[in-house]
Amino acid sequence: MKTKTLEDLFHEGLRDIYYAERQILRALPKMIRGTQSGDLRAAFEKHLEQTEMQVDRLQQVFELMGKRAQGKTCPAIDGILEEGQEILDSYKGSAALDAGLLAAAQAVEHYEITRYGTLCTWADLMGQREIVSLLKETLAEEEETDKSLTDLAEASINQSALAA
Amino acid sequence: MKTKTLEDLFHEGLRDIYYAERQILRALPKMIRGTQSGDLRAAFEKHLEQTEMQVDRLQQVFELMGKRAQGKTCPAIDGILEEGQEILDSYKGSAALDAGLLAAAQAVEHYEITRYGTLCTWADLMGQREIVSLLKETLAEEEETDKSLTDLAEASINQSALAA
Repeated sequence: MKTKTLEDLFHEGLRDIYYAERQILRALPKMIRGTQSGDLRAAFEKHLEQTEMQVDRLQQVFELMGKRAQGKTCPAIDGILEEGQEILDSYKGSAALDAGLLAAAQAVEHYEITRYGTLCTWADLMGQREIVSLLKETLAEEEETDKSLTDLAEASINQSALAA
Repeated sequence: MKTKTLEDLFHEGLRDIYYAERQILRALPKMIRGTQSGDLRAAFEKHLEQTEMQVDRLQQVFELMGKRAQGKTCPAIDGILEEGQEILDSYKGSAALDAGLLAAAQAVEHYEITRYGTLCTWADLMGQREIVSLLKETLAEEEETDKSLTDLAEASINQSALAA
């Protein structure tokens, strides 16, 4: 049996995040419909557009690796998105809904940040400059999204939940 | 039906992370036994001790809220830890095992960082100074653990995987 290498880890990590991004693409429209805040809706809509581009970038990375773009079930993102769905269901119509949804979205961002961070480091070690550049672009977007969600929470969403 | 409030979100988030910390307590000994790196083993052992203190702090927070310390199944941490177990199983004996385990541990840290960050913000809004102080102590430890794992990856673990 061939021993597993860093390249195997990278390839499996790529399949994991590819599955994750596509699950996020399916979950975001529910969050867009569910939120009661115009600002949060706009943030989710912007992130939906970005996620589509991020999926495209991952397909380019698979191509550069000479591999077929294929996801691998990622129980982590399934669990994280399930918690978001629970918030949508159990806080529907309450003033705390948006604060909960925003927190759920930040858990998604943090999962992506840790995975893209690791993939960037591994691609760099493997000397895959073009792949690093694609993944870094996405990583920067995820970090920016997380930061803008924090700003939105502090500026309005949390206060609305408190005022209830 | 009473509308749900920020306090409900906080209490459910607390139960979620309490369950998560206790699952982490159960998972860490497997990672300690599984790793092939003395440095990574030492990092996991240190984090095990910290996690025990973090569980204690959460019990203090429940007490300050006048609530019973009780977890709530958190599918997110279950999924994240399941991915760590997959690495343990499928990379056993390979040089890339430790790089994969370290990445799995960082996914756990990022989940904790996002959840503790949110809980700190909500506790602050609720005017719960003592709770904020307890949660901030844990948040700082999680951020420090994540950083030291990154340092360890860069200093040795990733290079060992590459050399395979």
